[in-house]
Formats: sequence, C-alpha cells, structure tokens
Amino acid sequence: MKIIELSQIKRLLPSIDLIPIIAEGFAAYSAGKAVIPPVGELLFDHGDVHIKYGYIKNDEFYVIKIASGFYNNPKLGLPSSNGLMLLFSQSTGELISILLDEGYLTNIRTAVAGAIVAGHLAPRKVERIGVVGAGMQGRLQLRYLRPVVGCEQVLVWGQNESELGQYKADMEREGFRVETTLEADQVLKSCNLVVTATPSTRPLLHVQSLHPGVHITAVGSDTPEKQELDSAILAQADLIVADSISQCLSRGEIYRAISSGQITRDRIVELGRIISRDAPGRTSDSQITVADLTGLATQDISIATAVYRKSITRIYAP
Amino acid sequence: MKIIELSQIKRLLPSIDLIPIIAEGFAAYSAGKAVIPPVGELLFDHGDVHIKYGYIKNDEFYVIKIASGFYNNPKLGLPSSNGLMLLFSQSTGELISILLDEGYLTNIRTAVAGAIVAGHLAPRKVERIGVVGAGMQGRLQLRYLRPVVGCEQVLVWGQNESELGQYKADMEREGFRVETTLEADQVLKSCNLVVTATPSTRPLLHVQSLHPGVHITAVGSDTPEKQELDSAILAQADLIVADSISQCLSRGEIYRAISSGQITRDRIVELGRIISRDAPGRTSDSQITVADLTGLATQDISIATAVYRKSITRIYAP
Repeated sequence: MKIIELSQIKRLLPSIDLIPIIAEGFAAYSAGKAVIPPVGELLFDHGDVHIKYGYIKNDEFYVIKIASGFYNNPKLGLPSSNGLMLLFSQSTGELISILLDEGYLTNIRTAVAGAIVAGHLAPRKVERIGVVGAGMQGRLQLRYLRPVVGCEQVLVWGQNESELGQYKADMEREGFRVETTLEADQVLKSCNLVVTATPSTRPLLHVQSLHPGVHITAVGSDTPEKQELDSAILAQADLIVADSISQCLSRGEIYRAISSGQITRDRIVELGRIISRDAPGRTSDSQITVADLTGLATQDISIATAVYRKSITRIYAP
Repeated sequence: MKIIELSQIKRLLPSIDLIPIIAEGFAAYSAGKAVIPPVGELLFDHGDVHIKYGYIKNDEFYVIKIASGFYNNPKLGLPSSNGLMLLFSQSTGELISILLDEGYLTNIRTAVAGAIVAGHLAPRKVERIGVVGAGMQGRLQLRYLRPVVGCEQVLVWGQNESELGQYKADMEREGFRVETTLEADQVLKSCNLVVTATPSTRPLLHVQSLHPGVHITAVGSDTPEKQELDSAILAQADLIVADSISQCLSRGEIYRAISSGQITRDRIVELGRIISRDAPGRTSDSQITVADLTGLATQDISIATAVYRKSITRIYAP
C-alpha cells in the first residue's frame, strides 16, 4: 500500500495531461460505464463533507474521495479545504493507495472540469474571463482556462478589497491582467466567459446582466442549499449542461432552477455526451450557455488513478 | 496526522474496555445524539464495500469507515475483509488519524456488539453456544461472548469438514469445547444462544428448529440480499431487536421479514433503548429473542475514537 503525500502529488501533477483523462471519465459516466452511487454528505454548522465514490466498470480500481470545506478555517489560519482519496482493488478490495491530498486534487479536478467545459462551450474568442470568488478555486480556474481559451484579461469579484488585492497580485505575477470589482453583476456584464466559485447560498449573478454570447460555468454550488446564479439565467440560456443530470437534480444551480419552476429536466444536456460528440456544444457565438458542475466521482476516480499510476512509473535513464 | 497500523491496533486493543464504549455509542444513537447518514455501498460480483460514517453531536471527531468483504479472496490466499477507518476533526475537517485496520476493527466491533446483545438478551444460563459460520467472525464472537455468558460449550456449523476441523482446533486451543455439524438447524435445536455469521443469501436456520428460551443474534446479513434466518423465526420471537431500526428497514433479517409480511415495524425495539433501560430486554427464561445486527456507524465511531485516544496516551513510568 502506497501513501502519497501532498508534496509528491504536487510534483507529479505537472507531468500528467489531466484534461483528456478527466474528459474520458465524464464520457464514460454519460455512456453508462461508471457506477457512481449518490454522494455521501455530512453537514456541520460551518462546514460540509462530501464522500464521492465509485468505479469505471472493468477498470482496475475503485475510488473513495473525502473532501470537506470548513469556511471558518481561514480565520484560524487553516485552509478551508481538507480531504483525501483512497484507491482500492476492484477484484480483492485491498487498499492500494492513500492520496493525502488535503482537498488539493478536488480543487484541481474541479478546475480541469472548468477547462474541459470551456473547450466545448466558451465563445470562439474570449475577450475577458470573469471570475466570481477570489479564493483558491478562482485562481485555479484561471490557470487551467488559459491554455484552452488563450485569454489573460480578467475581471474578478471578491468580498472585500483585501482579498481582491491579494488575488490581483498573485495572478498578475502569473501573467494575467486583472481588474477587480465589488459588484458581482459587473463581472457578468463585461465578460464573455464567467466562472463562479463561491460557497454562496444566494444568487450573486442576475439575469439583468446576461448578454448574448456569454458562457457561465457555475462551480461553487454543490449542495441543495448553495446557489450562485439567479435561476432566471438558466431559463434564458440556449444550452444548459450538467456534469451529471441525476446529481444536478438534487443539488446545485439546476436543482434550484428546476425547484423554482424556471426550467424543466428535459432541457439539461450531460457534459459527457458533448465530450463524446453525442450532443452538440456551443454552435454559435451568440448563444448563452451555462454549465453546472456539482463535482462528479468520475473526476476523482480519473485523477486519483492517474496520480497513483504516475507515482509508480519508473523512469529509466538512458 | 497519525497513521496507526494494524499491528499497533492489535497491541492497543487489549487495554481498551470496548463493551461499555460501544454500548454507549448504541445508546447515544437511539437517543438521537448521533448523525448517521445511510450506508454507502458498492457491490461487485464477488464482494461488497460498505461506507459507514457519521458523528456524535458535540464530540471531537467525525469518522468514516470503509470495510469490504470479497468472498473469493481466501482462494487467493488473502483475507476476505479489508478496509480502514478515518478520524477527522468536527470543527476544522482536518484528517486526524488513519487506522489501517484492514477490516479488523469492523470484525471486532461486530463481535463486541454480539457480546453486548448477549448481556441483555441471552438466557441466564447459557448451556451451549451455537455458531453458524466457521470463519473469522464465528471465532471472534466466541472470544467476546465468553466473559459475558460464561460458557465454553460450543456447537459450530460450517460448510465442510475441513473448515470445521480448523475452527475446532483453533477454539479448543483457547479453551472452548467444540462440537461440529454440517446441518445448520442442529445448532438451533441444541443451543440456547446462537450466533449466525455467514454471508448467506438463503435462510440457514428454520422455524421448525426454534425452541423456547433461545436467543439468536444474526450478524451476517448486512445487505438487502443476505439472509440467514427463516423470516418465520422473527415472526415467532417474543422480542425482535435491531441495532438501528431505520437501517434494518432496508437491509438484513428484519428487512426480509417485513418485506415478506412476517412481521411489522412496530414490533422492533432498538438496542440502544435496551442498553439505556428505556425498554426491557429479556424478561423470562422461556422467551425467544432475536437481534439483527446490520452494523452501525456508531460502533465504528466508538472503536476508532477509543483506539486513537489510546494511541496518543502517554504512559509515564514512575
């Protein structure tokens, strides 16, 4: 049994091409090749824990991922994310590897999903990337979006000037040109690729700011309570994409929009079907598209398996 | 974060008095002090995986336990059980400890639950302990029952003479007097405390062999498919006890008996209520009592917390 520490995970990741690996997992899921039970959940006053697990049929491993967000941790000087991933043998049940990622791989696979979505749904020319939420995920999304959409202009919304200043400094060091705002709708108004990455339980973006040609990826809402988008935005969209239709019926933006009667289930297209060219993605520059990512166990299976396999790969020097 | 290996767990266990610790967990559960979501489950052709998790409110930790049984493993020279337990902080979500117990603590807490049940439901004088299933759990049950019921006479059923011979040799070395049978109903006929511990999906014990004064603890069935007792046995019982009523409504002997119309839900008493003297256990030597143990996350929370706390206890030499 191999224990892989966070530092080693971070060393291995740059040599793994995650976009095709995770895209393949979404496609397998939508093709019915994955067994993914409902998400396990523990809710605390200031945090929530998600247990995502399952396997791709006839693959080598099954994976259990635990990831938590405890939103008061930063006040204590601790990261809000925690967790680990576990790989077991599908044939014997033996524990093969513990990835002590402290929630990091969940953040990464979420950012990679954002990049995969953008590859299929972003307008051909992204003028400016809008980021709602100046936290860790708001940073990672930019890093994984850049090679896909080729844009370094950014407008970011955050809760206060202090976190915005830090975000701007961090991302400008990486070559982005970042403007900031305390008005979330300003992001939607002035960008044509928007990512929301907050734990908000009230809509931050409103339909009045929607405009033709925009794509929105909603990443933050992964429980029945959380919501970042006015449901009327989904109602106005030409294309609504879910990472998992069944999961989005009980959590996230789509759940909220269906509950409030703004959209019906038959309007939802699953991401894996677009990836496998079984359904169209964006077909014109004027469409409004929305993707709701609640986080799918296949992403965890894909990334955990890839990191473990890379960790046992021997490099033979010539 | 502390990793506790199986060898260390085995060294720590003898110094922990598990019966009151696990009994307290059952009582807390029945008093509504525990948050225990439904069991997570993965089913494979030759194995199943259970994820049990939750917490006692206002306690220090939350616990996630993974335990699997892969029933062809012994043919490969591997134990059928695997798994691990994880302790996290309830206040920050941080991973506190990984108990690499390989399913061992699940086996132990299951045997301890059998002993707790016997303390409340076994007849005053146990003449002979009947064990159905000559595997690991059939051995552990005897070890934990002995100090509670003070009986060393055993009749054991197994699948073949070879496994029975090994069981007899092992347990006689520990001081039990063991007879064996290939007819399961013989165990029920001739013992007044019976434990069933098999992964059977068909009843092994039948109502024709039932007699006044017997107590049966059914340990093996923890999925909707598994069944060890003819449901008519439950119908005939004076007292039917569940470790968790809600869990037993979807898996185990009680689920089977309710589905087949043999009993109704209002007849079931929860073990924690008996432990906390909120409901009576056995009240006469002629009663027939049945306990259905599907395995409850509070047992995992109790044992994992106890082992971790013992592991960090410093012993100050004088």
